[in-house]
Amino acid sequence: MDEPGKTDMTHSGAAAAPAEDYLYFDDIEAGLVFKAGPVTVTQEEIIEFAQKYDPQPMHIDPELAKDTVFGELVSSGWLTACLGMRMFLQSVNGPPGGMIGRTIEELQWPRPVRPGDVLTGESTVLERRPSNSRKDIGIVRFEITAKNQNGEVVYLMRSVVIMPRRPA
Amino acid sequence: MDEPGKTDMTHSGAAAAPAEDYLYFDDIEAGLVFKAGPVTVTQEEIIEFAQKYDPQPMHIDPELAKDTVFGELVSSGWLTACLGMRMFLQSVNGPPGGMIGRTIEELQWPRPVRPGDVLTGESTVLERRPSNSRKDIGIVRFEITAKNQNGEVVYLMRSVVIMPRRPA
Repeated sequence: MDEPGKTDMTHSGAAAAPAEDYLYFDDIEAGLVFKAGPVTVTQEEIIEFAQKYDPQPMHIDPELAKDTVFGELVSSGWLTACLGMRMFLQSVNGPPGGMIGRTIEELQWPRPVRPGDVLTGESTVLERRPSNSRKDIGIVRFEITAKNQNGEVVYLMRSVVIMPRRPA
Repeated sequence: MDEPGKTDMTHSGAAAAPAEDYLYFDDIEAGLVFKAGPVTVTQEEIIEFAQKYDPQPMHIDPELAKDTVFGELVSSGWLTACLGMRMFLQSVNGPPGGMIGRTIEELQWPRPVRPGDVLTGESTVLERRPSNSRKDIGIVRFEITAKNQNGEVVYLMRSVVIMPRRPA
Protein backbone atom coordinates (compact mmCIF):
# COMPACT_ATOMS: atom_id res chain seq x y z
CA MET A 1 0.00 0.00 0.00
CA ASP A 2 2.79 2.37 -0.85
CA GLU A 3 0.69 3.88 -3.55
CA PRO A 4 -2.98 3.91 -2.59
CA GLY A 5 -3.84 6.75 -4.93
CA LYS A 6 -3.19 5.83 -8.53
CA THR A 7 -3.95 8.28 -11.26
CA ASP A 8 -3.45 5.98 -14.25
CA MET A 9 -6.81 5.82 -16.00
CA THR A 10 -5.91 3.28 -18.68
CA HIS A 11 -8.09 0.19 -18.89
CA SER A 12 -5.39 -2.41 -18.41
CA GLY A 13 -7.42 -4.58 -16.03
CA ALA A 14 -6.59 -5.97 -12.64
CA ALA A 15 -4.54 -8.87 -13.98
CA ALA A 16 -1.65 -6.66 -15.09
CA ALA A 17 0.02 -5.93 -11.73
CA PRO A 18 2.64 -8.20 -10.13
CA ALA A 19 1.11 -10.42 -7.43
CA GLU A 20 2.90 -8.71 -4.56
CA ASP A 21 1.26 -5.41 -5.46
CA TYR A 22 -2.31 -6.66 -5.09
CA LEU A 23 -4.28 -5.51 -2.15
CA TYR A 24 -6.02 -8.28 -0.21
CA PHE A 25 -8.61 -8.22 2.55
CA ASP A 26 -5.72 -8.69 4.99
CA ASP A 27 -4.28 -5.32 3.94
CA ILE A 28 -7.52 -3.46 4.61
CA GLU A 29 -8.32 -1.58 7.78
CA ALA A 30 -11.03 0.89 8.76
CA GLY A 31 -10.18 4.47 7.91
CA LEU A 32 -7.96 3.72 4.91
CA VAL A 33 -8.64 6.08 2.02
CA PHE A 34 -7.97 5.33 -1.65
CA LYS A 35 -7.90 8.14 -4.17
CA ALA A 36 -8.28 7.95 -7.93
CA GLY A 37 -8.64 10.04 -11.02
CA PRO A 38 -8.87 12.55 -12.47
CA VAL A 39 -11.12 11.42 -15.31
CA THR A 40 -12.72 13.83 -17.75
CA VAL A 41 -16.30 13.12 -18.76
CA THR A 42 -16.84 13.83 -22.45
CA GLN A 43 -20.04 14.68 -24.29
CA GLU A 44 -19.29 11.81 -26.66
CA GLU A 45 -19.17 9.26 -23.84
CA ILE A 46 -22.29 10.69 -22.16
CA ILE A 47 -24.29 10.32 -25.38
CA GLU A 48 -22.87 6.95 -26.41
CA PHE A 49 -23.50 5.43 -23.00
CA ALA A 50 -27.02 6.85 -22.72
CA GLN A 51 -28.03 5.66 -26.18
CA LYS A 52 -27.25 2.14 -25.01
CA TYR A 53 -28.54 2.13 -21.45
CA ASP A 54 -30.39 5.30 -20.43
CA PRO A 55 -31.89 6.88 -23.57
CA GLN A 56 -33.58 9.88 -21.96
CA PRO A 57 -33.65 13.38 -23.51
CA MET A 58 -31.31 14.94 -20.96
CA HIS A 59 -28.66 12.31 -21.67
CA ILE A 60 -28.77 11.74 -25.44
CA ASP A 61 -29.09 15.14 -27.13
CA PRO A 62 -28.05 18.69 -26.13
CA GLU A 63 -31.11 20.14 -27.90
CA LEU A 64 -33.67 17.79 -26.32
CA ALA A 65 -31.96 18.33 -22.97
CA LYS A 66 -32.95 22.01 -23.00
CA ASP A 67 -36.57 21.02 -22.33
CA THR A 68 -35.71 18.96 -19.26
CA VAL A 69 -35.28 20.04 -15.65
CA PHE A 70 -31.50 20.15 -16.21
CA GLY A 71 -31.69 22.52 -19.17
CA GLU A 72 -28.57 20.98 -20.69
CA LEU A 73 -26.93 17.66 -21.43
CA VAL A 74 -25.98 15.73 -18.28
CA SER A 75 -24.47 12.33 -17.64
CA SER A 76 -26.66 9.36 -16.87
CA GLY A 77 -26.25 8.59 -13.20
CA TRP A 78 -25.30 5.08 -14.29
CA LEU A 79 -22.37 6.37 -16.31
CA THR A 80 -21.26 8.37 -13.28
CA ALA A 81 -21.54 5.18 -11.21
CA CYS A 82 -19.53 3.24 -13.78
CA LEU A 83 -16.78 5.85 -13.81
CA GLY A 84 -16.81 5.66 -10.01
CA MET A 85 -16.41 1.88 -10.22
CA ARG A 86 -13.46 2.17 -12.57
CA MET A 87 -11.76 4.70 -10.32
CA PHE A 88 -12.45 2.48 -7.30
CA LEU A 89 -10.78 -0.50 -8.99
CA GLN A 90 -7.80 1.52 -10.09
CA SER A 91 -7.16 2.98 -6.68
CA VAL A 92 -7.67 -0.18 -4.60
CA ASN A 93 -5.94 -2.65 -6.98
CA GLY A 94 -7.54 -5.83 -5.70
CA PRO A 95 -6.27 -9.33 -6.53
CA PRO A 96 -7.22 -11.38 -9.62
CA GLY A 97 -9.90 -13.18 -7.61
CA GLY A 98 -11.82 -9.95 -7.98
CA MET A 99 -13.64 -7.57 -5.72
CA ILE A 100 -17.27 -8.54 -5.73
CA GLY A 101 -20.00 -6.04 -4.97
CA ARG A 102 -22.60 -7.87 -2.93
CA THR A 103 -24.94 -5.10 -1.89
CA ILE A 104 -25.11 -1.36 -2.24
CA GLU A 105 -26.68 0.11 0.84
CA GLU A 106 -27.24 3.55 -0.61
CA LEU A 107 -26.41 5.44 -3.75
CA GLN A 108 -26.97 9.16 -4.38
CA TRP A 109 -26.31 11.62 -7.17
CA PRO A 110 -26.39 14.99 -5.34
CA ARG A 111 -25.42 17.02 -8.42
CA PRO A 112 -25.43 16.45 -12.17
CA VAL A 113 -22.27 15.67 -14.15
CA ARG A 114 -21.82 17.77 -17.29
CA PRO A 115 -19.63 17.39 -20.38
CA GLY A 116 -16.10 18.45 -19.55
CA ASP A 117 -16.44 17.83 -15.83
CA VAL A 118 -13.31 16.39 -14.25
CA LEU A 119 -14.02 13.78 -11.59
CA THR A 120 -11.87 12.44 -8.80
CA GLY A 121 -12.79 9.45 -6.68
CA GLU A 122 -12.29 8.66 -3.02
CA SER A 123 -13.02 5.33 -1.34
CA THR A 124 -12.94 5.09 2.44
CA VAL A 125 -13.00 1.83 4.41
CA LEU A 126 -15.87 2.07 6.91
CA GLU A 127 -15.36 -1.39 8.42
CA ARG A 128 -14.07 -4.86 7.64
CA ARG A 129 -14.66 -8.33 9.01
CA PRO A 130 -13.58 -11.85 8.04
CA SER A 131 -16.28 -14.05 6.54
CA ASN A 132 -18.01 -16.31 9.05
CA SER A 133 -18.39 -19.14 6.58
CA ARG A 134 -15.32 -18.96 4.34
CA LYS A 135 -11.67 -18.61 5.26
CA ASP A 136 -10.58 -17.28 1.87
CA ILE A 137 -12.63 -14.08 1.82
CA GLY A 138 -13.52 -11.08 3.93
CA ILE A 139 -16.26 -8.46 3.87
CA VAL A 140 -15.44 -4.75 3.55
CA ARG A 141 -17.82 -1.81 3.72
CA PHE A 142 -16.66 1.14 1.63
CA GLU A 143 -17.95 4.67 1.24
CA ILE A 144 -17.19 5.71 -2.32
CA THR A 145 -17.55 9.27 -3.55
CA ALA A 146 -16.78 11.23 -6.69
CA LYS A 147 -16.31 14.97 -6.80
CA ASN A 148 -16.18 17.38 -9.71
CA GLN A 149 -13.53 20.01 -10.41
CA ASN A 150 -15.27 22.39 -7.98
CA GLY A 151 -15.04 19.90 -5.12
CA GLU A 152 -18.78 19.20 -5.23
CA VAL A 153 -19.91 15.63 -4.55
CA VAL A 154 -21.64 14.23 -7.64
CA TYR A 155 -21.83 10.63 -6.49
CA LEU A 156 -21.95 8.92 -3.12
CA MET A 157 -22.32 5.23 -2.40
CA ARG A 158 -21.98 2.84 0.50
CA SER A 159 -21.09 -0.60 -0.72
CA VAL A 160 -20.49 -4.05 0.78
CA VAL A 161 -17.62 -5.72 -1.07
CA ILE A 162 -16.25 -9.26 -0.85
CA MET A 163 -12.43 -9.33 -1.05
CA PRO A 164 -10.12 -12.36 -1.29
CA ARG A 165 -7.74 -13.00 1.60
CA ARG A 166 -4.02 -13.29 0.91
CA PRO A 167 -3.16 -16.90 -0.01
CA ALA A 168 -1.26 -18.73 2.75
CA MET B 1 -51.39 2.62 -19.70
CA ASP B 2 -52.91 0.18 -22.11
CA GLU B 3 -49.53 -1.36 -22.70
CA PRO B 4 -47.45 -1.29 -19.53
CA GLY B 5 -45.23 -4.17 -20.58
CA LYS B 6 -43.34 -3.35 -23.72
CA THR B 7 -40.97 -5.89 -25.19
CA ASP B 8 -39.32 -3.69 -27.82
CA MET B 9 -35.64 -3.50 -26.89
CA THR B 10 -34.52 -1.06 -29.55
CA HIS B 11 -32.81 2.10 -28.39
CA SER B 12 -35.18 4.62 -29.87
CA GLY B 13 -35.22 6.89 -26.84
CA ALA B 14 -38.09 8.38 -24.91
CA ALA B 15 -38.72 11.18 -27.37
CA ALA B 16 -40.22 8.87 -30.00
CA ALA B 17 -43.70 8.28 -28.56
CA PRO B 18 -46.69 10.60 -29.13
CA ALA B 19 -47.28 12.91 -26.17
CA GLU B 20 -50.54 11.27 -25.15
CA ASP B 21 -48.75 7.96 -24.63
CA TYR B 22 -46.30 9.28 -22.06
CA LEU B 23 -46.78 8.24 -18.49
CA TYR B 24 -46.74 11.09 -15.98
CA PHE B 25 -46.64 11.15 -12.20
CA ASP B 26 -50.41 11.65 -12.30
CA ASP B 27 -50.84 8.23 -13.92
CA ILE B 28 -48.86 6.43 -11.23
CA GLU B 29 -50.38 4.67 -8.26
CA ALA B 30 -49.04 2.26 -5.66
CA GLY B 31 -49.15 -1.36 -6.76
CA LEU B 32 -48.81 -0.72 -10.48
CA VAL B 33 -46.42 -3.17 -12.13
CA PHE B 34 -44.48 -2.54 -15.34
CA LYS B 35 -42.89 -5.43 -17.20
CA ALA B 36 -40.12 -5.34 -19.76
CA GLY B 37 -37.82 -7.52 -21.76
CA PRO B 38 -36.72 -10.08 -22.62
CA VAL B 39 -33.15 -9.01 -23.29
CA THR B 40 -30.36 -11.47 -23.98
CA VAL B 41 -26.99 -10.74 -22.39
CA THR B 42 -24.16 -11.55 -24.77
CA GLN B 43 -20.54 -12.42 -24.00
CA GLU B 44 -19.51 -9.64 -26.35
CA GLU B 45 -21.43 -7.00 -24.41
CA ILE B 46 -20.23 -8.34 -21.05
CA ILE B 47 -16.59 -8.04 -22.13
CA GLU B 48 -16.93 -4.72 -23.96
CA PHE B 49 -18.71 -3.09 -21.02
CA ALA B 50 -16.28 -4.45 -18.45
CA GLN B 51 -13.21 -3.36 -20.40
CA LYS B 52 -14.51 0.18 -20.15
CA TYR B 53 -15.92 0.32 -16.63
CA ASP B 54 -15.25 -2.80 -14.54
CA PRO B 55 -12.08 -4.46 -15.85
CA GLN B 56 -11.91 -7.39 -13.44
CA PRO B 57 -10.85 -10.92 -14.45
CA MET B 58 -14.32 -12.45 -14.05
CA HIS B 59 -15.79 -9.86 -16.41
CA ILE B 60 -13.21 -9.40 -19.16
CA ASP B 61 -11.88 -12.84 -20.12
CA PRO B 62 -13.36 -16.38 -19.96
CA GLU B 63 -9.93 -17.85 -19.20
CA LEU B 64 -9.03 -15.43 -16.41
CA ALA B 65 -12.54 -15.89 -15.01
CA LYS B 66 -11.80 -19.55 -14.26
CA ASP B 67 -9.53 -18.49 -11.38
CA THR B 68 -12.19 -16.35 -9.74
CA VAL B 69 -14.92 -17.33 -7.29
CA PHE B 70 -17.37 -17.51 -10.20
CA GLY B 71 -15.27 -19.96 -12.22
CA GLU B 72 -16.61 -18.51 -15.46
CA LEU B 73 -17.30 -15.23 -17.20
CA VAL B 74 -20.09 -13.22 -15.54
CA SER B 75 -21.61 -9.81 -16.17
CA SER B 76 -20.44 -6.80 -14.23
CA GLY B 77 -23.17 -5.93 -11.78
CA TRP B 78 -23.12 -2.46 -13.34
CA LEU B 79 -24.00 -3.84 -16.75
CA THR B 80 -26.85 -5.76 -15.15
CA ALA B 81 -27.98 -2.51 -13.51
CA CYS B 82 -27.76 -0.66 -16.83
CA LEU B 83 -29.83 -3.30 -18.61
CA GLY B 84 -32.31 -3.01 -15.75
CA MET B 85 -32.44 0.75 -16.29
CA ARG B 86 -33.10 0.35 -19.99
CA MET B 87 -35.89 -2.12 -19.35
CA PHE B 88 -37.35 0.20 -16.71
CA LEU B 89 -37.45 3.11 -19.16
CA GLN B 90 -38.97 1.01 -21.90
CA SER B 91 -41.73 -0.34 -19.72
CA VAL B 92 -42.68 2.89 -17.92
CA ASN B 93 -42.37 5.26 -20.93
CA GLY B 94 -41.99 8.49 -19.00
CA PRO B 95 -42.35 11.95 -20.59
CA PRO B 96 -39.57 13.92 -22.32
CA GLY B 97 -38.88 15.81 -19.09
CA GLY B 98 -37.21 12.59 -17.99
CA MET B 99 -37.39 10.30 -15.01
CA ILE B 100 -34.64 11.31 -12.66
CA GLY B 101 -33.15 8.87 -10.21
CA ARG B 102 -32.54 10.80 -7.01
CA THR B 103 -31.48 8.08 -4.60
CA ILE B 104 -31.16 4.34 -4.64
CA GLU B 105 -32.05 2.99 -1.25
CA GLU B 106 -30.72 -0.51 -1.85
CA LEU B 107 -29.29 -2.49 -4.70
CA GLN B 108 -28.49 -6.22 -4.68
CA TRP B 109 -27.15 -8.77 -7.13
CA PRO B 110 -28.35 -12.07 -5.60
CA ARG B 111 -27.06 -14.22 -8.50
CA PRO B 112 -24.55 -13.75 -11.31
CA VAL B 113 -25.60 -13.07 -14.91
CA ARG B 114 -23.87 -15.27 -17.50
CA PRO B 115 -23.48 -15.00 -21.28
CA GLY B 116 -26.68 -16.11 -22.96
CA ASP B 117 -28.88 -15.36 -19.96
CA VAL B 118 -32.26 -13.91 -20.89
CA LEU B 119 -33.45 -11.21 -18.51
CA THR B 120 -36.91 -9.82 -17.88
CA GLY B 121 -37.59 -6.75 -15.78
CA GLU B 122 -40.37 -5.86 -13.40
CA SER B 123 -40.91 -2.47 -11.76
CA THR B 124 -43.47 -2.11 -8.99
CA VAL B 125 -44.69 1.21 -7.59
CA LEU B 126 -44.19 1.08 -3.81
CA GLU B 127 -45.53 4.57 -3.11
CA ARG B 128 -45.96 8.01 -4.67
CA ARG B 129 -46.36 11.52 -3.35
CA PRO B 130 -46.50 15.01 -4.89
CA SER B 131 -43.46 17.18 -4.31
CA ASN B 132 -43.78 19.53 -1.35
CA SER B 133 -41.84 22.30 -3.04
CA ARG B 134 -42.65 22.01 -6.74
CA LYS B 135 -46.01 21.64 -8.46
CA ASP B 136 -44.59 20.21 -11.68
CA ILE B 137 -43.04 17.03 -10.26
CA GLY B 138 -43.81 14.10 -8.00
CA ILE B 139 -41.77 11.50 -6.15
CA VAL B 140 -42.21 7.79 -6.81
CA ARG B 141 -40.57 4.87 -5.00
CA PHE B 142 -40.09 1.85 -7.25
CA GLU B 143 -38.90 -1.66 -6.59
CA ILE B 144 -37.14 -2.82 -9.72
CA THR B 145 -36.09 -6.42 -10.29
CA ALA B 146 -34.62 -8.47 -13.10
CA LYS B 147 -34.93 -12.24 -13.36
CA ASN B 148 -33.12 -14.72 -15.57
CA GLN B 149 -34.68 -17.41 -17.76
CA ASN B 150 -35.01 -19.68 -14.72
CA GLY B 151 -37.04 -17.13 -12.81
CA GLU B 152 -34.17 -16.37 -10.44
CA VAL B 153 -33.73 -12.77 -9.28
CA VAL B 154 -30.37 -11.45 -10.48
CA TYR B 155 -30.94 -7.81 -9.61
CA LEU B 156 -33.08 -5.99 -7.08
CA MET B 157 -33.23 -2.28 -6.40
CA ARG B 158 -35.39 0.20 -4.53
CA SER B 159 -35.20 3.58 -6.14
CA VAL B 160 -36.59 7.06 -5.53
CA VAL B 161 -37.51 8.64 -8.85
CA ILE B 162 -38.63 12.17 -9.71
CA MET B 163 -41.35 12.19 -12.39
CA PRO B 164 -42.91 15.17 -14.19
CA ARG B 165 -46.60 15.89 -13.62
CA ARG B 166 -48.93 16.12 -16.60
CA PRO B 167 -48.92 19.68 -17.98
CA ALA B 168 -52.15 21.55 -17.23
